[in-house]
Amino acid sequence: MLSLVRLRLVKYVLQTSGKYGFFRNKLRSVSPKSQNNHLSVAGKHSNTKNRPSDTGKLRDCVVINRCSTSTTSIDLTRSVFTASAESKSKILIPDHDEFSKRHIGPRDTDKKEMLEVVGVKNVEELIEKTVPSSILHRKLLNMDHPLGEQDLLKKIKSIAQKNKIWRSYIGMGYNSCKVPHTILRNILENPGWYTQYTPYQAEIAQGRLESLLNYQTMIADLTGLDIANASLLDEGTAAAEAMGVCYRQTKRNKFYCSEKVHPQTLAVVQTRASALGVEVLVGDLNAMNYSQKDVMGVLFQYPDTEGAINDFSELVHKCHEYGTLVVCACDLLALTIIKPPGEFGVDIAVGTSQRFGVPLNYGGPHAGFFAVQASLTRIIPGRMVGVSRDASGDKAYRLALQTREQHIRRDKATSNICTAQALLANMSAMYAVYHGPDGLRAIANQVHNATLWLAKGIREAGHAMENSVVFDTLKVMPCVSQGEIRKRAHELEINLRYYGDGSVGVSLDETVKEKDMNDLLQLFGVKKKVEEIVNFSTEKFEESIYGTPFERTSKYLIHPVFNMYHSETALVRYMKMLENKDISLVHSMIPLGSCTMKLNGTTEMMPCSWQEFTDIHPFVPKEQAEGYKQLFEELERDLCEITGFDNISFQPNSGAQGEYAGLRAVKSYLKAIGQQQRDVCLIPVSAHGTNPASAHMAGMIVEPVRLNKDGSIDVDHLKTRLIANKDKVACLMITYPSTNGIFEEGISKAHLSPFLPSHPVVDPLYGLGQNLKPFGVVSASPWGSSAILPISWAYIKMMGPSGLRHATEIAILNANYMSRKLEKYYQILYRGTNGMVAHEFIIDVREFKKTTNVEAMDIAKRLQDFGFHAPTVSWPVPGSLMVEPTESEDKRELDRFCEALIVIREEIKDIEEGRMDKKINPLKMAPHPQKDVYSDTWNRPYSRQKAAFPAKFISPECKVWPTVSRVDDIYGDKNLFCTCPPMEAYGSE
Amino acid sequence: MLSLVRLRLVKYVLQTSGKYGFFRNKLRSVSPKSQNNHLSVAGKHSNTKNRPSDTGKLRDCVVINRCSTSTTSIDLTRSVFTASAESKSKILIPDHDEFSKRHIGPRDTDKKEMLEVVGVKNVEELIEKTVPSSILHRKLLNMDHPLGEQDLLKKIKSIAQKNKIWRSYIGMGYNSCKVPHTILRNILENPGWYTQYTPYQAEIAQGRLESLLNYQTMIADLTGLDIANASLLDEGTAAAEAMGVCYRQTKRNKFYCSEKVHPQTLAVVQTRASALGVEVLVGDLNAMNYSQKDVMGVLFQYPDTEGAINDFSELVHKCHEYGTLVVCACDLLALTIIKPPGEFGVDIAVGTSQRFGVPLNYGGPHAGFFAVQASLTRIIPGRMVGVSRDASGDKAYRLALQTREQHIRRDKATSNICTAQALLANMSAMYAVYHGPDGLRAIANQVHNATLWLAKGIREAGHAMENSVVFDTLKVMPCVSQGEIRKRAHELEINLRYYGDGSVGVSLDETVKEKDMNDLLQLFGVKKKVEEIVNFSTEKFEESIYGTPFERTSKYLIHPVFNMYHSETALVRYMKMLENKDISLVHSMIPLGSCTMKLNGTTEMMPCSWQEFTDIHPFVPKEQAEGYKQLFEELERDLCEITGFDNISFQPNSGAQGEYAGLRAVKSYLKAIGQQQRDVCLIPVSAHGTNPASAHMAGMIVEPVRLNKDGSIDVDHLKTRLIANKDKVACLMITYPSTNGIFEEGISKAHLSPFLPSHPVVDPLYGLGQNLKPFGVVSASPWGSSAILPISWAYIKMMGPSGLRHATEIAILNANYMSRKLEKYYQILYRGTNGMVAHEFIIDVREFKKTTNVEAMDIAKRLQDFGFHAPTVSWPVPGSLMVEPTESEDKRELDRFCEALIVIREEIKDIEEGRMDKKINPLKMAPHPQKDVYSDTWNRPYSRQKAAFPAKFISPECKVWPTVSRVDDIYGDKNLFCTCPPMEAYGSE
Repeated sequence: MLSLVRLRLVKYVLQTSGKYGFFRNKLRSVSPKSQNNHLSVAGKHSNTKNRPSDTGKLRDCVVINRCSTSTTSIDLTRSVFTASAESKSKILIPDHDEFSKRHIGPRDTDKKEMLEVVGVKNVEELIEKTVPSSILHRKLLNMDHPLGEQDLLKKIKSIAQKNKIWRSYIGMGYNSCKVPHTILRNILENPGWYTQYTPYQAEIAQGRLESLLNYQTMIADLTGLDIANASLLDEGTAAAEAMGVCYRQTKRNKFYCSEKVHPQTLAVVQTRASALGVEVLVGDLNAMNYSQKDVMGVLFQYPDTEGAINDFSELVHKCHEYGTLVVCACDLLALTIIKPPGEFGVDIAVGTSQRFGVPLNYGGPHAGFFAVQASLTRIIPGRMVGVSRDASGDKAYRLALQTREQHIRRDKATSNICTAQALLANMSAMYAVYHGPDGLRAIANQVHNATLWLAKGIREAGHAMENSVVFDTLKVMPCVSQGEIRKRAHELEINLRYYGDGSVGVSLDETVKEKDMNDLLQLFGVKKKVEEIVNFSTEKFEESIYGTPFERTSKYLIHPVFNMYHSETALVRYMKMLENKDISLVHSMIPLGSCTMKLNGTTEMMPCSWQEFTDIHPFVPKEQAEGYKQLFEELERDLCEITGFDNISFQPNSGAQGEYAGLRAVKSYLKAIGQQQRDVCLIPVSAHGTNPASAHMAGMIVEPVRLNKDGSIDVDHLKTRLIANKDKVACLMITYPSTNGIFEEGISKAHLSPFLPSHPVVDPLYGLGQNLKPFGVVSASPWGSSAILPISWAYIKMMGPSGLRHATEIAILNANYMSRKLEKYYQILYRGTNGMVAHEFIIDVREFKKTTNVEAMDIAKRLQDFGFHAPTVSWPVPGSLMVEPTESEDKRELDRFCEALIVIREEIKDIEEGRMDKKINPLKMAPHPQKDVYSDTWNRPYSRQKAAFPAKFISPECKVWPTVSRVDDIYGDKNLFCTCPPMEAYGSE
Repeated sequence: MLSLVRLRLVKYVLQTSGKYGFFRNKLRSVSPKSQNNHLSVAGKHSNTKNRPSDTGKLRDCVVINRCSTSTTSIDLTRSVFTASAESKSKILIPDHDEFSKRHIGPRDTDKKEMLEVVGVKNVEELIEKTVPSSILHRKLLNMDHPLGEQDLLKKIKSIAQKNKIWRSYIGMGYNSCKVPHTILRNILENPGWYTQYTPYQAEIAQGRLESLLNYQTMIADLTGLDIANASLLDEGTAAAEAMGVCYRQTKRNKFYCSEKVHPQTLAVVQTRASALGVEVLVGDLNAMNYSQKDVMGVLFQYPDTEGAINDFSELVHKCHEYGTLVVCACDLLALTIIKPPGEFGVDIAVGTSQRFGVPLNYGGPHAGFFAVQASLTRIIPGRMVGVSRDASGDKAYRLALQTREQHIRRDKATSNICTAQALLANMSAMYAVYHGPDGLRAIANQVHNATLWLAKGIREAGHAMENSVVFDTLKVMPCVSQGEIRKRAHELEINLRYYGDGSVGVSLDETVKEKDMNDLLQLFGVKKKVEEIVNFSTEKFEESIYGTPFERTSKYLIHPVFNMYHSETALVRYMKMLENKDISLVHSMIPLGSCTMKLNGTTEMMPCSWQEFTDIHPFVPKEQAEGYKQLFEELERDLCEITGFDNISFQPNSGAQGEYAGLRAVKSYLKAIGQQQRDVCLIPVSAHGTNPASAHMAGMIVEPVRLNKDGSIDVDHLKTRLIANKDKVACLMITYPSTNGIFEEGISKAHLSPFLPSHPVVDPLYGLGQNLKPFGVVSASPWGSSAILPISWAYIKMMGPSGLRHATEIAILNANYMSRKLEKYYQILYRGTNGMVAHEFIIDVREFKKTTNVEAMDIAKRLQDFGFHAPTVSWPVPGSLMVEPTESEDKRELDRFCEALIVIREEIKDIEEGRMDKKINPLKMAPHPQKDVYSDTWNRPYSRQKAAFPAKFISPECKVWPTVSRVDDIYGDKNLFCTCPPMEAYGSE
């Protein structure tokens, strides 16, 4: 049997947004024998219950997940142990510059005290008692010795410089833009923004939520639709999600795509459709048949991939007549001057907001967008910010309709998206806030005008122009050979789009200056400079939008937020004001038990804003991206060494996408070996909601597997399910290390590598041989979020084998130290045989519900008053808190967090013993924002001091406040409102 | 008569620290005739009273001051108006990327409303009514057209790349170091830190004050002395200040300097001494005669400039016997392992903290340090942070002994220093906080060990080693020619120190890796690699500190602050916690009327952390700094164009230093023309305290000139003074535009250019011809704070002539708008003839003192409760507030500030009319920190709401709080305590 493991070992992210996952593939993994031998498999392991499997040896397919949100370094070595050798040079000149000492929180004296509390002599004993010896790696990881932070930057600079920065006018959904430096520095490079967690705890996340609401408002306004979500991964997946919405909404299974959609978008849609049994027809939408009422939806691009702006209003009319939904992939900048899709009846608009202030990034990360007509609001995939009210009735933002997130309806889900590209969406929103509607229109006109002059010059030189109305993109059939154009472009270091039919595409953008225009004219053999063309020309512009019915007449971004912050001073203050409303890692630990939250070192982050990494179009010829190639290869090699697998795809843009890619590879493999009837995926009931959703999307049938009381998988039940689905089981999907079941499998050699994701424009599978059978495409860009890979690369290079090992040791020490300190006050679930926990632990607070009506959520909210973000609430065990301190937190911080929980336990006891009211108490009333505490009237049965400063370590000098009182989710979902509220609602602001 | 104008036109700074001044020199300025013709001069102008002079035409010497603190862009064109021409390309492709629109706050609609309030039709009318036509520039400034932000970066990158980054082992007080990236990003590149103002308003500056106190503690600990100040400009000026202390303390006038002091330090000391009439003897201190009790002090370097560590204890003993003070210039890193000067009796230690985490910066900015034995505490020059208590009796930091600052004793001052390099001092302090004592010791040992191995190798190759005990610096007399060594070093791109006697100096630092060691060995012709030298060597190290009496045995940095934040996570939180205690431009306007506070655009700041600018030793051969040369020349050209002068020296590191340099140049000129008896400097009584101090330091006699009631200079009195000092007047010193007197002078041609500051190591006077007669050296490095010059360069290039003009117009509009809104509530002083103010205005609040006992300071403190930094308090008019809104603040911010002042006026009325107590009221009790407002007991005659949220715009969601209540300055000065207080004092933190 194949198994797919979602490795929680590697979690790491650039912000709510900057996430990606990747999908690993083990060469020697599955044999036909194993597939027919489920019983013996299960039987074989029934006596090894509770022994986690060896990741490196026994998984077929691993999804390595940079967690679903925020921050945090790669967290590679929860189970990978190795020793390191000191280099001779280090003995000669001992280096004080060890990154691991900066990354790992506790100092040596701390460790000693903590080991004492845990009751072990040293770290070695701790590890022996914590990690079952069967999975304890003792061999050396074969990796480079760690580099210091300065040397690391030198090294990655030399790699970066292998990338060549040409001007790219390729278009296809990726356009250069001017990233406002103040947004770059104050958001992208600011840990106050990039170390925030997903805004589940709305009361300490109002800043980000406001910014994301700006994003939604911007998308809704520009597309002319009613409602937008808080972003998706990219344009391709957004289009695939749109297809999913059509599918769910109409229950039909035919989907029409215009052949003028970007090829990568088409590929992602086709890949997604193929597993769902959806038939995708590609062609001229006007020529297709809708009258059978079997078409769920159509997808077209506007302006289309070749630059043409066409009138789709009749098509939309026809579609609606036959119950077919209409999806339009569109360009945000074009929409500032052309009629938006919402105004000609489109149901769903998708696209990317990259060109709004986010660098090309060699493909990512960027934010995709998704907007719909009001009637589709409740089936929008992904995250959405909504306006609700807090306990005092004041306006408050929060994630709306959260049931669609972690709680994706397990066996009915057809979307696994539970993520947003928040950091990038925020950058784009700020770009619109900074420019405002007039500024955006000016940019669009600049780009459009430049395109018109260029067209004029090119036409005068005798080339044929293929489109009649355009925004920024020309398709030219040259009167010389395409090769000649290509040669001249090459000399000028310019990338264009070269079509198979000999024509050439040029897409302009806001960075184009007169010099660029003249270079373009030159390569098309135009003798004049652009200035002359304008001076000597009297005829009107042929391709202009102005004077056509495509001209936009409606207003947009009229909300004050887009009209107040146009000076740098004003914008800086706005960004700082939002930043300061939110708790992030720059304030205190975020002890989430399912999403490892630790600070990305500055050194890891710095290369992410170097232009050698940011200013490359994803579809440039590969020889311009040799630096990236080296980075991919080195990172792949190191990750393979850590996990024991053989190849990696960096294409998946999120953990859920990684799951999906893995399952698709499994399916392709089964088909290749004639076992396509196998379509059952066994998934433990404790699994994250994305697991069954991914399985559904991969066209599999989900078969749930029960758990034992201790949280481990019920192997007897697994056995039954295996017997029942004997010839139909495709694979088993587990998460590691949080699930303790054992699923080793005797398999003879086979491999999934040929089935890694591919790409229609640029082949991401360097040197993987000839026999590739890729299942398809999962992201719009070949390597997903390329520009954040330096983070993981740098982390591994700086930690080195010994640093990675020690990080794991201290992560385990920190968790055990905390659990020991808390065990006198709370019930700790699921200890191992030696009474130890792993790198995280679960506090069971269900008993309090019975005695005092206090729930896990109340504790979570009360922690905000102590300046802390809550641990994971009620997952994977309902009524619990799961705490992962990580290795980066030092003893003082752990002590403070424990003290907060101990004070809270005393507050619960006050209720238990009748000293405090059951309804009006510090827990139920939590959190306490300033507006409550400063109020001149205070009539609660506890003091202001108790409310806001409940422990000695919370000093009024540096307290971080929630900015609203408890947010009312139910009200918000009932009264869904997902764009910026009118200014009156801002009250005193 | 010569005149020296302190131009307030150009104020601009990189942080409390990053300031510099520069000194301009007008070629055609002074004639012998004019010097003999004072009466006619004064007479000639008595009928032009109140007409400000034309800066460009009539000044001889101008000090352009980047204000004494913080932030703010260059503010060039308060009186420089010009029109600009649109470029053709702009018409072709209209550029939306205009920096001036980002820099200037008010939008077009704002401007319209504001002009209406002011009562003028348009900006032109406003300017006509505000600026006297005689000084209104109408000609075009001959400057480049403005660049967009992206183009600017490209352009300055191409300039930067003309600098060559070689490895520099030159030493001489400048050493490469590893700037911790997290400090770089979170302090140097963070507007939350670099836009703070001088911490005069202590209650909203506790974060910075804590960090500066850490700096002082670090310096005191490492030098083994009792007390240190919050930094000076550089090592050279610190040594000169030390000489000044010796002079003041002993009243003697002979000063001995070791010949082994860094040459630039010696030059600065000699320059400073020459004007004071102090005789400096340079030589072997041990051979000199002290017994006449006429020696005020001695200065030596430890380790000395050639690297030797010598025993000075006997010398110190002898000095003290004869009442001579002892000054030691020392190296902070060496002091972590060698006996500190405080332990062998030294009275004053000086030096630079550059190698503690601040880049080389081609000479600056860096922080100089200054520490003394307790007995000298009250004559320490510069700023000092002290611990005091607030109104509640809690610990609070503030600037100690502030009377020494703006209020330097006018006619007795012998130091004009009123500034600190705070941002750089904070970086160095954080470097020590991050490394802690063990980390610093490890770095020192790494450097020391590397030096010992290198010495061993060099000796084995047959070269002679000149010093017996060293820390990091070798002086080698090579057995081959110096030229041969130099040639090999050149091939390896390594800079060494080349002595005139044929020997070679090598100073190592923490960046030296094994590869560098091997290159150094190679260039000295050593066949072995460093690894072999260690492996095959058995003898002990000859030059080691260990085992000698120089070994340091005392502890240092034992305070918890240096032992708690060693992980990046912990440090980031500490830095953020401090940042968030302080108000800076990222929160609200800082409307100071004497220090222009506006945001440096991110684009201006970015190049300042590029290694092409940061990683260059100030003494590299000039051909390695061609980029800098271009930058200096372009900036000089633009500033000359703006001011009408001909040459500029960038060497002065502060405005006060610029004054001093100007006066010295005047003096040298007078000497050159045989008028050395002229030594009287006329200074209006309203002048900043630095003016007379600078005059004293320049060896001039100060003759005060009275003012008229309207603040202008009393020309009749000036006439009297001129007559009385007929043959003795050297010059007149005024500030422009804040002083309205007229001092034009009919002069025939002469020039001060030959007298610009020089430098003993690198000549800063590019191409100024042969007849140079420089008066001396004012800073340790040839061009002062080179690395922040890109800020001003970028500002000018992006604003362009029309942008600069418009900035001035809007600065004037903003000030007039505010004054109009406030005139109904407050008395506005000194309006012009049309009822207009210039770019700043003065509010007179003296009347309230009589009626309600409310003083300007109470209003200043109360403004903190509104989230504002106070305007300039009681300067230049006692009992007033001087407001300069700058062009960067938009109408909304101006309105908020006005609203705050209007609310305050109502609060004063409440006291006036008996509705509020005269002692316990919101003004007298201001500011209100959280600890007061959230207290469970509140017994004031006004509400909590009134205390902390006195206006609608102050929302509890984003209120910026003072963190202590009003600080008690008197208590702090009486109980002076200037190092980190013991942990118990931190209370609840």
